[in-house]
Amino acid sequence: MESRALDAIVVSSYQNVSYFAGSTITTQVSLPDRLGFLIARRDGAATLLFCNIEISQLKTQTDIGDVREYVEFAQNPTEELARILRELGLTGGSIGIDARRLPAASMTILQRDLPASEFVPIDDELELSQAVKDPDETEKLEEAAKSSLAAIEDTIKTLPKGATERDVSSAIYLRLMQSGGKPLFMVFASGERTLQAHPESTDTPMPRGILWRIDYGARFDGGINSDLARTGVVGAASPEQEATLRALRATQDAGFRAIEPGRPAKDVFFAVRDEFKRQGLPFTMPHVGHGMGIGLHEYPMLEPGNDTPLEVGMVLNVEPMALIMSRREGYHTEDLAAITETGRRLLTPPQEHLLIIPG
Amino acid sequence: MESRALDAIVVSSYQNVSYFAGSTITTQVSLPDRLGFLIARRDGAATLLFCNIEISQLKTQTDIGDVREYVEFAQNPTEELARILRELGLTGGSIGIDARRLPAASMTILQRDLPASEFVPIDDELELSQAVKDPDETEKLEEAAKSSLAAIEDTIKTLPKGATERDVSSAIYLRLMQSGGKPLFMVFASGERTLQAHPESTDTPMPRGILWRIDYGARFDGGINSDLARTGVVGAASPEQEATLRALRATQDAGFRAIEPGRPAKDVFFAVRDEFKRQGLPFTMPHVGHGMGIGLHEYPMLEPGNDTPLEVGMVLNVEPMALIMSRREGYHTEDLAAITETGRRLLTPPQEHLLIIPG
Repeated sequence: MESRALDAIVVSSYQNVSYFAGSTITTQVSLPDRLGFLIARRDGAATLLFCNIEISQLKTQTDIGDVREYVEFAQNPTEELARILRELGLTGGSIGIDARRLPAASMTILQRDLPASEFVPIDDELELSQAVKDPDETEKLEEAAKSSLAAIEDTIKTLPKGATERDVSSAIYLRLMQSGGKPLFMVFASGERTLQAHPESTDTPMPRGILWRIDYGARFDGGINSDLARTGVVGAASPEQEATLRALRATQDAGFRAIEPGRPAKDVFFAVRDEFKRQGLPFTMPHVGHGMGIGLHEYPMLEPGNDTPLEVGMVLNVEPMALIMSRREGYHTEDLAAITETGRRLLTPPQEHLLIIPG
Repeated sequence: MESRALDAIVVSSYQNVSYFAGSTITTQVSLPDRLGFLIARRDGAATLLFCNIEISQLKTQTDIGDVREYVEFAQNPTEELARILRELGLTGGSIGIDARRLPAASMTILQRDLPASEFVPIDDELELSQAVKDPDETEKLEEAAKSSLAAIEDTIKTLPKGATERDVSSAIYLRLMQSGGKPLFMVFASGERTLQAHPESTDTPMPRGILWRIDYGARFDGGINSDLARTGVVGAASPEQEATLRALRATQDAGFRAIEPGRPAKDVFFAVRDEFKRQGLPFTMPHVGHGMGIGLHEYPMLEPGNDTPLEVGMVLNVEPMALIMSRREGYHTEDLAAITETGRRLLTPPQEHLLIIPG
């Protein structure tokens, strides 16, 4: 706040409120009109404003003592926010906001009710302030990632022959839920649909030799997410399929090698892209990975325009994906690394071979 | 558009884009910076703008032929939207927007790049335009609701004694995934935590006699959601517990009886509230139900200020919840009804008794 001369910060997104308040009120995502806000002032004091329905749960999650509530439909949450800002003496100064998350309708109300205030978008600063994890967060991210990998590896060994896409994805998710993960997203597809970005499982049978891929995530205690991808086949891999996985793995290794404190985030992107070219793989990715935490795509995004210096404590996924149009197959693999003084520590072991579903 | 003298409508939310385009691009929710837009013009022509990663999947879902793409990070999606609006001749007129969903940062860009255009919030109109379902949508909603109910009823019968909260919720979700549901949200808790709004399952054992409740939903083909709640006990219910369920059921019945074409939505709220009083139950709800579809809380919301006339074809949940503080128990039940010429048709049979988990 000091460097931007802000009197306060108001955040509205699930990720930002959860990060700073320690809460996980998931209706911030599933019920977008049920707004929740965190006000942080320059003196360190914080205030939460949530729908009265969520308050008893919120109080079990947050250390913030000043929790205000609005009654849904009887009160407009943003008008209540403006009223509280006035009550806190926050009129006429500068207030930082997550303008890429705050609804335009809320901004209209804030500008109307606080005409002398300046609302300053600080989305990038908010994202960057969450990029370096403390050891406890890194440990949780590692546990979440390892659980998500184990759920795949342990489950597919036990599948009977003839499993459909839906059988496989359901069994993997069951295993993850049993280890404490709450379902977040599940990409699972075989054959030609592996070329799509986020295909979902259907009751399609998967014949021997067909390629499949999974990209999935879950939310664990404290709101920490996993996000992991693997590619496999049914029965046994052809030499061509295995060769493509080896080439993809080389691009991921190149990305991990570029992760060092002080280097710009874009170096990881270019390292992966250049290795795609060396391996003869078609490169179509706008980014090759991202930070992980309460959000699914946290900063720094590993994209070609990102000069953000990598720092010790950041936790990053590297996730190359190759679309092999001649065979109508999409290959994807994704693992997590924490940046250390000397480079990076992998939190999940990258895949050595295509995974095998019995068939 | 005619009645509001709009030249075009631009929508940005997952629900609105999915409804009008027939798409289900779930990263609109999980990756909020990966914006997707639908432009609809007065002559009926429509244009989609999505991130290039999502395009191959989007084209398998939508009938809209004019699909534009932006490259993430290289291009700002809202600047691209403004460029396309200019290309389509949409400068200087009135454009309807979903201002409660469009990010404030995007609004700033639109106002900067299209300074002669007026952007008119039409959130309520957009919601209301989705409230009456066609027979195909109603059938899908009924199937989704019935699957979600069957997943609870079939699963709990088969549970071994000693199941934890997590065992139960995981087993129910597995059954739902096997019937084609994609996990959306899962409230499951026992004992005192049933008083919270959206508690999640933990590895807590559930002793005989303890109250539990579930409120959960999944997304089915075409993006149609379920949302269903039930309350139960472990082993056997006490007379007091069963009496509370009967009283709660009476409030739900009163709500359903108030669902008739032509009556205002608020009548359902007051019917439930008044029956709470007659039954001697504490009433704390800001709403007693809502429309269902691609969104979880669609219009009409059954809240005390809502004069929207109920119409044939609307599909509504009625979901009374009673917090019994003396016993530290929260009771919740939720079922779906379609409005017919003569009243309403229940799409799931409301619960007659507390459900029983073996114990």
